[in-house]
Amino acid sequence: MKINGTHYRAIWLKEDDPTTLQAIDQRYLPHEFIIEDMRTVEEVARAIREMHLRGAPLIGSAAAYGMYLALLDPPEEKSRIGKYLQEIAQLLKETRPTAINLAYAVDRVLAAIEKEKEVAAMAREALQEAHNITEENVEQCRLIGQHGLALIQAISKKKKGKPVNILTHCNAGWLACIDYGTATAPIYAAHNAGIPVHVWVDETRPRNQGANITAFELLHQGIPHSVITDNTGGHLMQHGMVDLVLVGSDRTTRRGDVANKIGTYLKALAAKDNKVPFYVALPSSSFDFRLRDGLQEIPIEERNPDEVSYVYGWFNGKIYKVRISPQDSTATNYAFDVTPARLVTGLITERGVCRPSERGIFKLFPEAK
Amino acid sequence: MKINGTHYRAIWLKEDDPTTLQAIDQRYLPHEFIIEDMRTVEEVARAIREMHLRGAPLIGSAAAYGMYLALLDPPEEKSRIGKYLQEIAQLLKETRPTAINLAYAVDRVLAAIEKEKEVAAMAREALQEAHNITEENVEQCRLIGQHGLALIQAISKKKKGKPVNILTHCNAGWLACIDYGTATAPIYAAHNAGIPVHVWVDETRPRNQGANITAFELLHQGIPHSVITDNTGGHLMQHGMVDLVLVGSDRTTRRGDVANKIGTYLKALAAKDNKVPFYVALPSSSFDFRLRDGLQEIPIEERNPDEVSYVYGWFNGKIYKVRISPQDSTATNYAFDVTPARLVTGLITERGVCRPSERGIFKLFPEAK
Repeated sequence: MKINGTHYRAIWLKEDDPTTLQAIDQRYLPHEFIIEDMRTVEEVARAIREMHLRGAPLIGSAAAYGMYLALLDPPEEKSRIGKYLQEIAQLLKETRPTAINLAYAVDRVLAAIEKEKEVAAMAREALQEAHNITEENVEQCRLIGQHGLALIQAISKKKKGKPVNILTHCNAGWLACIDYGTATAPIYAAHNAGIPVHVWVDETRPRNQGANITAFELLHQGIPHSVITDNTGGHLMQHGMVDLVLVGSDRTTRRGDVANKIGTYLKALAAKDNKVPFYVALPSSSFDFRLRDGLQEIPIEERNPDEVSYVYGWFNGKIYKVRISPQDSTATNYAFDVTPARLVTGLITERGVCRPSERGIFKLFPEAK
Repeated sequence: MKINGTHYRAIWLKEDDPTTLQAIDQRYLPHEFIIEDMRTVEEVARAIREMHLRGAPLIGSAAAYGMYLALLDPPEEKSRIGKYLQEIAQLLKETRPTAINLAYAVDRVLAAIEKEKEVAAMAREALQEAHNITEENVEQCRLIGQHGLALIQAISKKKKGKPVNILTHCNAGWLACIDYGTATAPIYAAHNAGIPVHVWVDETRPRNQGANITAFELLHQGIPHSVITDNTGGHLMQHGMVDLVLVGSDRTTRRGDVANKIGTYLKALAAKDNKVPFYVALPSSSFDFRLRDGLQEIPIEERNPDEVSYVYGWFNGKIYKVRISPQDSTATNYAFDVTPARLVTGLITERGVCRPSERGIFKLFPEAK
């Protein structure tokens, strides 16, 4: 998608140096546009852990490229390569516990290089698979956009062309993916199709990915939007000011329970209470078909409490980290919550829209049964 | 209540100068402790409008003292006094649209001075009535604490003395009132009675009254607490980590619909979904007995969008105002929402606990029928 009119993806190999991975360092958005170089798997792991990169599909892709970078710097003893790959895979999978895409991408790379004997061939195959995962992700997001577009079109028709008000939480945009985004893809598709839309952007404390990143994305695509606090969505829905809620997912179980950014569950409750359709957009790589009960089975990441006690913001040409709570007050920081399937209207996947139930999901993905 | 071991109220007349009103300027908490002097009704109106003071009971009391200050500086033409009082009353009532306590307090002062002919006598009566309102508020909060204590005691007994986890939103503490607070009064009473409690403090964006003020209050009373983002409460309730939700109210209708800080409704939905008791603590001055349907009838204040786009915080010995969203993104800032009575377990008033219904409320307040 576009930043100041130039097309970018969220991650790519450096044009003149295929041993360097590049990505937009999202910690500085919207205030500064900084591209980070990563040359080792450790640098990739750190970028994921410390959220220079974030978003389930994007960290999957980054981890796949991380496997490739690791193979450019293998252990000297050839016999250790198997153990080395296991360690690297573990390192990458453990950077973030909730998103399933990490395991999905790393395991795909491991499978792709399994039959190779030479490290050089392994590296070549790992790179190819990382590219495959990335391109598939882009295509999946494009298709999610097309399937979601139909939903927005239907609402627009009902509203006789008045702007469709869409509420989104966190950033499930192109910067959380590679291009298009998941929850944003239908919004971009609608905008491109000339359908008037307006987006309510939950700021999404503690890291403000909504205020920082989703607002930045929408601004650069020229889409009308308004940033709101995470407290506001319920009031808007009570007063008919939201036509559709669209969010992403970090992991969705086989029966349709959705792990997503903390606070998603509260919006789903409000949507249910006010009969507002609540859709989750996700590529199939975000399903964890092994799990049923999301509340019991999906691990929820607990992050540094400083993310709650402090806020990053822009003042006088610089980013400051300011403290908002008393020095001696503790804070607690859960990063995700689980929205039970009963609160979800539908899942928008690359294969179409389905009900959040085993029946609905396996109708679209019979091979995963 | 205490700050660094010294007892304070949130507002008082200056000890050696009864023509000066003093209050803690809450915009600087928890970082700086600043006492503001107010000598004119315009200064009081500004302090309420710009939230140097906030909290429904406190702004009621401040407005009453504002009427008194206005009478210290009456118009020269004696015949204009009636019109002057109307204008002043209007000025004070219009500082904030949602809390009913403003109108309650101003109308009480007007009634108290009605029969007086001389301005000096009016001022004397206004001061007495402002004192009365203030002392009544303190006593009402104390009683709310006693009635709420019983609820916490019962939960503590059930949990066999393990800490009772209470979630609160915004600041309905002593700094929102005069002393004790409304939602915090039962917490302070429980703590004083030796019942172990732990408070989840919603930070309460956009103005962070939870992270700034409630955390400050609890810290200075020595009560274990943890600041959380407004997104977190649902997850905690899903996992049995909240025993009780306790919030205040800016206006409650005769059938029990509760206007309170934006985001309260979302917590009420989560409490209902997880069978967590959800109580609203309020003095009778926060009832608006004329209204039934809170969603349709209570005006919701829309404040400056900059409160959403910017955050105030502490860095290197100074308060900074930092921008979190893109310069060119708009923001929308509703300050309150309405929680329908069906989501409220009970109302804790100075006369006891009642069901949020006309029947329940008028059993306690038959004179308001």
